[in-house]
Amino acid sequence: MKALVERVRSQDQRALARAISFVENDHPDKLSMLSDFAKTGHRAHYIGITGSPGAGKSSLVDRIITAVRQAGKTIAVIAVDPTSPFSGGALLGDRFRMHKHFSDPDVFIRSMATRGSLGGLARSTKDAVRVCNAYGFDYVLVETVGVGQSELDIMKVADTTAVVLTPNSGDVLQIFKAGIMEIADLFVINKADLPGVQKLKTQLSEFMHIVHHEHWVPPILETISTENKGIDELLHKVEQHHRFLQQTEAGRNKQTRQLTFEIYDIIREQIWLDVKKFIEADDEKQNTLKAGKNPYTIAKEWLRDWKRERG
Amino acid sequence: MKALVERVRSQDQRALARAISFVENDHPDKLSMLSDFAKTGHRAHYIGITGSPGAGKSSLVDRIITAVRQAGKTIAVIAVDPTSPFSGGALLGDRFRMHKHFSDPDVFIRSMATRGSLGGLARSTKDAVRVCNAYGFDYVLVETVGVGQSELDIMKVADTTAVVLTPNSGDVLQIFKAGIMEIADLFVINKADLPGVQKLKTQLSEFMHIVHHEHWVPPILETISTENKGIDELLHKVEQHHRFLQQTEAGRNKQTRQLTFEIYDIIREQIWLDVKKFIEADDEKQNTLKAGKNPYTIAKEWLRDWKRERG
Repeated sequence: MKALVERVRSQDQRALARAISFVENDHPDKLSMLSDFAKTGHRAHYIGITGSPGAGKSSLVDRIITAVRQAGKTIAVIAVDPTSPFSGGALLGDRFRMHKHFSDPDVFIRSMATRGSLGGLARSTKDAVRVCNAYGFDYVLVETVGVGQSELDIMKVADTTAVVLTPNSGDVLQIFKAGIMEIADLFVINKADLPGVQKLKTQLSEFMHIVHHEHWVPPILETISTENKGIDELLHKVEQHHRFLQQTEAGRNKQTRQLTFEIYDIIREQIWLDVKKFIEADDEKQNTLKAGKNPYTIAKEWLRDWKRERG
Repeated sequence: MKALVERVRSQDQRALARAISFVENDHPDKLSMLSDFAKTGHRAHYIGITGSPGAGKSSLVDRIITAVRQAGKTIAVIAVDPTSPFSGGALLGDRFRMHKHFSDPDVFIRSMATRGSLGGLARSTKDAVRVCNAYGFDYVLVETVGVGQSELDIMKVADTTAVVLTPNSGDVLQIFKAGIMEIADLFVINKADLPGVQKLKTQLSEFMHIVHHEHWVPPILETISTENKGIDELLHKVEQHHRFLQQTEAGRNKQTRQLTFEIYDIIREQIWLDVKKFIEADDEKQNTLKAGKNPYTIAKEWLRDWKRERG
């Protein structure tokens, strides 16, 4: 496992893919591996891209990859689809994109999808981001397909979250309702050659008044990804937000809050893995289970046993 | 709290609504309250209704309520909307339905929506179902708006899960991809007066061959909820599935698996609430947090401290 960590650190893409698979499949050594990776510190800039399906996120991300590469920087993209149970680069669109940047060792694209539970997906996505960070990418970009609660959970990992909308799509209310408004650092109006841009801007500003933005007011950008328009300005704003995070107290507080979430996640998972292992190793516990028994009584007993044994 | 539990048991609907709010808002006494409620045992039949938006689930549920009442039975409905952050019966449709059955003390309808995290929503929904069970309803029905991973998590509480589809909607593939196929006990083709019913049935049968159904092959029913057609047959199949669960070994095994999930849920939450309280009570812990620190190292330290203190 140490060897794999070292291979990722020395920028071996096959090792990177393998390490992410370990994370996805809950490999027994996952936590110690992630702990090793965490020694690198948070060096990459984590960008989150979210927005309704059909907003053109994929082509926007494609343009971002190209622009980042032209600037001589490296980038990893994690594309997350919470509605799909297939995983491991199996999404058609990503295969295509992967192919396009295939020969470029400074671009890495990986799809992640649901296995088991949503909580599990959010967890593996965040872990995959951290593995990519250890590899040494300048940017790690997480792209999600929709705007729902699962996206909200996943976006907690991002330093800078960009929400993509299109004119006349009625996205704004949905985004507001889903709680995405609160986590947006940038708004991107894609397909900005369509009519309705001004109306959308007005709507966004109105909703922004409801949501509290004390230290960083999210800029509203316009892009036309099919024509490669507005991408440089977008990356410029991403950099500006990066500086805000690094150089202001409000930005550092945001980072500390994220660190707290991360620690909570790790603790929750470590304890749970331990308790589950303890319970499942004990056949007697399994045999006492019968429909109709009071789950709270059993939970109390098992928890007491675990604490006695492992405490 | 004991008084509230007793009032729910003696079928006081205001107490029921209050107890569900306690569950939603993570009241400090929540776990002890749920433990008290669990003493009732699992008496109600839990029905899950899921399917794509637009499949006519709401009107179907409305017809089910009426049919159940005509049979002299009582029913609680928990309507879950994972995309909406509003809660407490605030959804327009439910207000309407609530109004319709308002004067009937043997019907209870409650909307639940996202607060905080999806995991939280699934948890509160399951808890609300159990509170309704303790009240003494014959049926507790959980209705979700979409077909995604969140619905899958929520449906784990149901004894009988009905998946609602409409002809020519292309739902089948999405339902298969979302993993809903595996948990379906009944398929309901609603709006069965539309063309395409036969094709949908064929598709469903084909997909069912892929998914393993050993002891209970999900029947495919047809309903036209606007004309109140097929509802009796639906309830008949629900009863048949209920008997399968009670009277066969495969059915009892399913119930035991659900009990295990429930116990795991409770343990996970109990430990986490305790750890979180422990961490947040310690100002020193909060003060050591600074961006860039290794979260795994901190997690390890805090976990060690907690075990030492509470183990």
